[in-house]
Amino acid sequence: MAGSSIGECFRVSTFGESHGAGIGCIVDGCPPGLTLDATDIQGELDRRRPGQSRHTTQRREADQVEILSGVFEGLTTGTPIGLLIRNTDQRSKDYDKIKELFRPGHADYTYLQKYGIRDYRGGGRSSARETATRVAAGAIARKYLRERLGVNIQAWMAQMGDIRADDFDAAEIARNDFFCPDALAAARMAEFLDTLRKEGDSIGARVDARVTGMPVGLGEPVFDRLEADIAKALMGINAVKAVAVGDGFAVVQQRGSQHGDSLAPQGFLSNHAGGVLGGISSGQDLILSVAIKPTSSIRIPRWSIDVHGRPVEVVTTGRHDPCVGIRAVPIVEAMLALVLMDHWMRQRAQNADAQAPLTPIPA
Amino acid sequence: MAGSSIGECFRVSTFGESHGAGIGCIVDGCPPGLTLDATDIQGELDRRRPGQSRHTTQRREADQVEILSGVFEGLTTGTPIGLLIRNTDQRSKDYDKIKELFRPGHADYTYLQKYGIRDYRGGGRSSARETATRVAAGAIARKYLRERLGVNIQAWMAQMGDIRADDFDAAEIARNDFFCPDALAAARMAEFLDTLRKEGDSIGARVDARVTGMPVGLGEPVFDRLEADIAKALMGINAVKAVAVGDGFAVVQQRGSQHGDSLAPQGFLSNHAGGVLGGISSGQDLILSVAIKPTSSIRIPRWSIDVHGRPVEVVTTGRHDPCVGIRAVPIVEAMLALVLMDHWMRQRAQNADAQAPLTPIPA
Amino acid sequence: MAGSSIGECFRVSTFGESHGAGIGCIVDGCPPGLTLDATDIQGELDRRRPGQSRHTTQRREADQVEILSGVFEGLTTGTPIGLLIRNTDQRSKDYDKIKELFRPGHADYTYLQKYGIRDYRGGGRSSARETATRVAAGAIARKYLRERLGVNIQAWMAQMGDIRADDFDAAEIARNDFFCPDALAAARMAEFLDTLRKEGDSIGARVDARVTGMPVGLGEPVFDRLEADIAKALMGINAVKAVAVGDGFAVVQQRGSQHGDSLAPQGFLSNHAGGVLGGISSGQDLILSVAIKPTSSIRIPRWSIDVHGRPVEVVTTGRHDPCVGIRAVPIVEAMLALVLMDHWMRQRAQNADAQAPLTPIPA
Amino acid sequence: MAGSSIGECFRVSTFGESHGAGIGCIVDGCPPGLTLDATDIQGELDRRRPGQSRHTTQRREADQVEILSGVFEGLTTGTPIGLLIRNTDQRSKDYDKIKELFRPGHADYTYLQKYGIRDYRGGGRSSARETATRVAAGAIARKYLRERLGVNIQAWMAQMGDIRADDFDAAEIARNDFFCPDALAAARMAEFLDTLRKEGDSIGARVDARVTGMPVGLGEPVFDRLEADIAKALMGINAVKAVAVGDGFAVVQQRGSQHGDSLAPQGFLSNHAGGVLGGISSGQDLILSVAIKPTSSIRIPRWSIDVHGRPVEVVTTGRHDPCVGIRAVPIVEAMLALVLMDHWMRQRAQNADAQAPLTPIPA
Repeated sequence: MAGSSIGECFRVSTFGESHGAGIGCIVDGCPPGLTLDATDIQGELDRRRPGQSRHTTQRREADQVEILSGVFEGLTTGTPIGLLIRNTDQRSKDYDKIKELFRPGHADYTYLQKYGIRDYRGGGRSSARETATRVAAGAIARKYLRERLGVNIQAWMAQMGDIRADDFDAAEIARNDFFCPDALAAARMAEFLDTLRKEGDSIGARVDARVTGMPVGLGEPVFDRLEADIAKALMGINAVKAVAVGDGFAVVQQRGSQHGDSLAPQGFLSNHAGGVLGGISSGQDLILSVAIKPTSSIRIPRWSIDVHGRPVEVVTTGRHDPCVGIRAVPIVEAMLALVLMDHWMRQRAQNADAQAPLTPIPA
Repeated sequence: MAGSSIGECFRVSTFGESHGAGIGCIVDGCPPGLTLDATDIQGELDRRRPGQSRHTTQRREADQVEILSGVFEGLTTGTPIGLLIRNTDQRSKDYDKIKELFRPGHADYTYLQKYGIRDYRGGGRSSARETATRVAAGAIARKYLRERLGVNIQAWMAQMGDIRADDFDAAEIARNDFFCPDALAAARMAEFLDTLRKEGDSIGARVDARVTGMPVGLGEPVFDRLEADIAKALMGINAVKAVAVGDGFAVVQQRGSQHGDSLAPQGFLSNHAGGVLGGISSGQDLILSVAIKPTSSIRIPRWSIDVHGRPVEVVTTGRHDPCVGIRAVPIVEAMLALVLMDHWMRQRAQNADAQAPLTPIPA
Repeated sequence: MAGSSIGECFRVSTFGESHGAGIGCIVDGCPPGLTLDATDIQGELDRRRPGQSRHTTQRREADQVEILSGVFEGLTTGTPIGLLIRNTDQRSKDYDKIKELFRPGHADYTYLQKYGIRDYRGGGRSSARETATRVAAGAIARKYLRERLGVNIQAWMAQMGDIRADDFDAAEIARNDFFCPDALAAARMAEFLDTLRKEGDSIGARVDARVTGMPVGLGEPVFDRLEADIAKALMGINAVKAVAVGDGFAVVQQRGSQHGDSLAPQGFLSNHAGGVLGGISSGQDLILSVAIKPTSSIRIPRWSIDVHGRPVEVVTTGRHDPCVGIRAVPIVEAMLALVLMDHWMRQRAQNADAQAPLTPIPA
Repeated sequence: MAGSSIGECFRVSTFGESHGAGIGCIVDGCPPGLTLDATDIQGELDRRRPGQSRHTTQRREADQVEILSGVFEGLTTGTPIGLLIRNTDQRSKDYDKIKELFRPGHADYTYLQKYGIRDYRGGGRSSARETATRVAAGAIARKYLRERLGVNIQAWMAQMGDIRADDFDAAEIARNDFFCPDALAAARMAEFLDTLRKEGDSIGARVDARVTGMPVGLGEPVFDRLEADIAKALMGINAVKAVAVGDGFAVVQQRGSQHGDSLAPQGFLSNHAGGVLGGISSGQDLILSVAIKPTSSIRIPRWSIDVHGRPVEVVTTGRHDPCVGIRAVPIVEAMLALVLMDHWMRQRAQNADAQAPLTPIPA
């Protein structure tokens, strides 16, 4: 009921605040026999970690993960995997001045009204810091999907403000500070962020994703459709304001004769649907897109109120990302991994003995 | 695990295929003491019902709902409410010719591959007919929200193909065949659909929604954020390909200084966020948008394959909606009602004794 | 949250009151491809049906089940199976006199205090009538377990008052009115119940059960152990007051040297554990026992209070079972089938690719 | 699906093996505003901790709990509470000799067959060590129930082998090594265990419990009845083989005229039901009983097989409890606290605005 768990078969439950002792999660339901050690998880965490370049927050967190249980002699045992990441760089005193006020665009007001109490240090539970646990859990799902099923998940910075990645070079994604597949666009992003930082402002972004090697049959209509659970997982990432599958909002202006993907013996002839039909994966690539709002932590003064309802001016001076969309890239990948892993397991619970009549159509 | 239930506190489980004996649902968890009879539900069902105008499918379904349980002497009792809608206009023979082939853009292929068997009549479980049960269940949630909390949910046709509703007259929504708040746009839509029908084609649509009278505090971070559960519920509607909250994809190009909604003693000064902050409702209006693909059931011939993998030409000749976005309007409202009701109950489970420090800010 | 669903993979949600329009359920998650028609379910329902002999309530219910969805051309499709049983013999006027009073031992008081309203006719939702839906759903699970896995579930009347079934003849169970494996004990039960009925009193019972053909590996520690979910399912049957696995309460006086079941290459050498070790099925027979209280609906006058808190004398004159333990036998079987089916599916979700190192030990 | 979570509103998810880095849990859904620090939890842990007397295992575990999140300035915040207990006294080498064999009465065989792999050190996940996390989580629920609702939960050693607690002195429970309310019986238990230890054997026990100050209305029929969820929670404790509510198995021989508890204006006149009617708490005391098997870890040689199916002789020489029933007492209390807290929250989710017509009857 409280909402810090996701998944039914591959179930991840998280805990932790920005400035508490630590953050972590339990992964319950991981299939046994998967080779796993901390480095498998650390690699993914390092991609999300703050302070990797001048373009993300300068908070210094080692983000060192410890596996507390569920792995024995290098293999998962099928029992819950406990993961712990200690918080190290907390500087709680920075936050005393926001103790009594509501920063515009932040969850300060809603948390206090909902619970009657809030841990105001660094946003507490609403901090993006919490997403490190998702990346950690996602790393396990991702490894299974890749090794056992050949599923590959890739997200990237598709647009930052007005700067679009027009070119797509998969190898480039890991080379620049923005997970951007277009080296030229990446260079422009760097320049743009330098300017933004000076202005004390922030910018929105679009992150796109593609999953290849998809199995056919994932998704549980009518409510737990694959795209519905993906929409929930992605909309549940801090700052995400929109989620699109396949052609997304472009379908509003499409005709049926143009949108429906024809099939041929050699496979689908197009992929407007983005890899799902009727809530079930078709075996085609999953194609997804999310919109990420500009962070509200900016140095430009804003009007707000304090906890007594009095007007105040707010200037956020902590260490923040001018474009939270950058670090969202590995989080999008992690959330996709969690949803796909869960649906893979759900699918075989019900249908392990079902006989598909046809060799899956090539993607 | 199988996905035909939604909600945790206000839990709706549905059943039924397009051409089976009937469709229905169980609403488990409805608070006791709500006045309810079949007419409360029937009114909502009639709005979604096919055959209301020449612009929707001519299938004739009475969509007469029967309350089987959970209501005693005109009041809900807190026990499960069983609802049944018999199928009456089934014409199963129409579907013999699609028995062995996969219609492009439909769930025929994925259902068969997933389960190894499918009820091909009218799309079986993947038919939009199933959404009638959602509207029925949603009617109960909606009544509670309106009567007890003053929450009002309104969706409308915002765009069909290139035709946008530029004007917004709430009273107009109920007056035309499209739930369109702009009478002029509605007239153009009528004309456009007449042309489309002749061409045997279909068109996409955008449906927008606004919820007023929102309580503060709904939403359960970090995964069951209000907007995340809404995204799932809306993306779980047949044909929906994208979901946006507040400014949606426009945030990609916004700056933080522009996006974050300032607060003042008299209330929020803007609503770019769309009514949620950190996954929790702020008391501002919820603002939502969905993209609905053009139906794939068109009379224009398409290429596809049959269950043996051989190429075939497909022409869909049954009774279909040229713009499924029209009838999606009441479904969007119903899904929102289900999510809000569920979160209202979840919120009070945990926080019924929490003391919010501040009178909620006016919306 | 409201509690009318059971199971995670094979999920059954029920609705219906004693004297409403009907009762029914949805089975969501049934594997596709199982042959199923109404007669498969009707056979089980008829075993539980009232009025089968002079020893059970004389309420006449046809208990005719209708399959509303989820079955196509004689096979389950993997979509939700909707089942409906209309109530036919309701005689609501019988119940006007209990409208304002709380019958001792009944749920009248607790339902009213919990919900602030109750359907007093025949006990409403708390009536044993509701268990017909469990038997209907259980029939589907049982069929799958028997046909696909060779699992057989058998319950029987082991004791009624002081009369014990000392002999065990499996074939005898279906031959007498009490599901009693001992013909002599059955004869004594008949005589005893005739006397009881004259006295207007009722009697408790013990129902035992054995499941043969058990797969190894069912059960999800640490909370969803197989015996824990069985305990919940059986304690959730009306009137059950105790549940025992294997040696049950006798273990209190046992020593470890006596209790622990030794293993040998040819199999386990005893079965004190009752078929579970550490919450997981061992492949041995499941051995279970439940205690069922005497019904509180008796003709002997009792003291109670009415809804205004005033003392009243209560005499129950409706049609009732003097020993509800009799009709509990098929319900125990149904509940076991539901739990085992669910755990079979849960097990394969996580462990379908796990390699058990050993041929299972013979039971 | 994997079973290491319990509760829906007050949801506890646990992790950890006997000889891994540590054990812990997440409590998600705890109401905000509860005063809480580590000592509140430590007190309960110390009651369960091994090595408290010569009668329990001599394993030395500090069982020091750390609160990682969810508490701010001494108050719960409504966000997940992460709890960690490091393992300190692990002596893994003791367990090398059981690496390849199945100890009779243990979960060795079933874990290996289920998962295809097992952490054999100290029983891994199936070790009673895991229950420390339940006691830690239960301490939080218990504190809320006691402070906010006046609910008191008390369990005790009612019988060990043939030695019964005939006298009941509540104050005595905390004074002896057995949680036994009868000082004389406790003295006999001490003597008996000294003998047993010399013989290298173990003994079963019966633990009884009573909950006072119960609210009316907890429990969610028809499946999540209060006694059903209690049965699951208690049967889910290691070594429990039977659970009884109220008169338990004695009801088999009772008549209705004797069993049904009469009501009078001043309250119920007896409590055969044990505090629940129709699955809902009546406000009377909850009365419960569980049977706990003798531990299978004994020094007397037993026959078994190894992982290759060959016969072996097994002698367990580690540090073990001769009567696991002793340390089960605080675990029974913890599990009851978890179930009651969860149902308290579930009840108010649905019925917070229901109007009970009557002042609850005095217990």
